[in-house]
Parts: sequence; C-alpha cells; structure tokens
Amino acid sequence: MNDQAPYPDWISEVRFDDQGLVAAIAQDAHSGKILMMAWMNRQALLQTCQSGHAVYYSRSRQSLWHKGESSGHTQIVEEIWLDCDADVIVLKVKQLGGIACHTGRQSCFFRRLTESDGKMQWQSIDPVLKDPKEIYK
Amino acid sequence: MNDQAPYPDWISEVRFDDQGLVAAIAQDAHSGKILMMAWMNRQALLQTCQSGHAVYYSRSRQSLWHKGESSGHTQIVEEIWLDCDADVIVLKVKQLGGIACHTGRQSCFFRRLTESDGKMQWQSIDPVLKDPKEIYK
Repeated sequence: MNDQAPYPDWISEVRFDDQGLVAAIAQDAHSGKILMMAWMNRQALLQTCQSGHAVYYSRSRQSLWHKGESSGHTQIVEEIWLDCDADVIVLKVKQLGGIACHTGRQSCFFRRLTESDGKMQWQSIDPVLKDPKEIYK
Repeated sequence: MNDQAPYPDWISEVRFDDQGLVAAIAQDAHSGKILMMAWMNRQALLQTCQSGHAVYYSRSRQSLWHKGESSGHTQIVEEIWLDCDADVIVLKVKQLGGIACHTGRQSCFFRRLTESDGKMQWQSIDPVLKDPKEIYK
C-alpha cells in the first residue's frame, strides 16, 4: 500500500493529530513494565500491524523507524490497544534482547523522582544492561 | 508557588514541548495495567508531586484537571518516573474506585485490534464497571 492508497477503516478510526501522529506506548507483554513511548503515523501503524514488529515515526529524522534496525532490539508485537479518545496506542510487545532504551537499559523510564538531601531529584534506578557502544557499533 | 515563581530544578529538567506540556502515562502500581495517558504542564506536575494526587492539564478546557474532581476516581501517586529524553512521565498510581476511564471502565485502553470476518477491527474487550450516568451525576 502506498501513501496515496486509502487506509483501512481501523486506521481511519484512529485520531491522528494535526501532524498526522499518534502516541504509542510499548509495554512488555510478560512483565507489564512500560518500556518507552514514541510516535506513529498511519504508515507506521499499518506496517506494525502487517509485520508484527513495532514501527514508529521518528520526529527528529522525519522518517519511519523500524525499532531495532540499528540495535537488533526489535519489538515483537503481541497486541495493539486503543484508548477511549482514539489518540493513544498501547503495544504489548516481546522486547528482543531485553533492552528497549538507547542507553542500554531495559526501559526508557529508568529515573525516579526521589527526595534526597531535602530536595526532589531524578535518580537513575535501573542499571545499564549493555554498553551503548556495544549496541550501536 | 505562583506562575511567576521559578520552578525547582527537577521540573526544569523535564523537557516540556512548545505548548509547555509533557505526556504522562498512569499505570496501576499493583497490577501494572496502563490506565490512561494525559498531559501535564509545569503546575500540574508540581501539584502532583506536592499533593500526591494526579493532576493533569486538560487541553480541551485549557486548565488544570484534578483527576477525580467530578468522578471521585482520584489517583494516589506512589511513584513518578521520567524517560531518557525527559519528555514523558510515568505515574505509578493507586486508582480509587478501580475506574480510570470516563466510560466507566478500569482503563482507557479497552479496545483491542482484532481480526474478525477477515478484517481488522477495534473490539471492545474490557467491561464497563459502572454506568457513567452514575459516575457523573
């Protein structure tokens, strides 16, 4: 299907924003841990459904982003869910390599707001599982 | 703290978008279920931290939205996490009433993409726990 072709009904029911994007949250299907949030355009969502692998839209690169294309840390999509406003997607995924974050951690959400020395600060909690230099050679 | 006052460092470290907003995902702290995604401005994030209850920013009403102010379905915030890009928040919450969605369901993500009669469609999976007419009297 090319960019000009009409999209199937299930994609038309999603409320993409004025930039043609919808937020997509990836959640580990087994543990329930939230791994990351990224964005999808219609093509990314369609390709995710068709391929069974998470495909996002990179706003910085302005192009489709096949998750794992550089790192090998592909996400196998087991379920796709839509919220009541039809403007947020949840993907339940199997995270290959057990690493979703470009910092080499399991999840992008590795900093927790913690009180220390009388003030609140973001504290890195989850460990780096693999040196990013080893991931992106 | 009023709108003119400087914000604490931990809020300045969050990358709010050009509308002054950051995405916030609420996750049930006990079950791991993703309940909803909404938006926060600096005041909402600060008040969430200070009060221990989830406060969002309603883009449609353009005002702070104390979750549960109409429904009673307040979210008690147990943990606040930030992602690697510092532009998405995860709240781990205790959901009072067990209902996060305005449709009366536990989660806003109640529709799953399912193949039926040879085509993909969004199928409502999770049940309505309480009639919205009973929630918003």
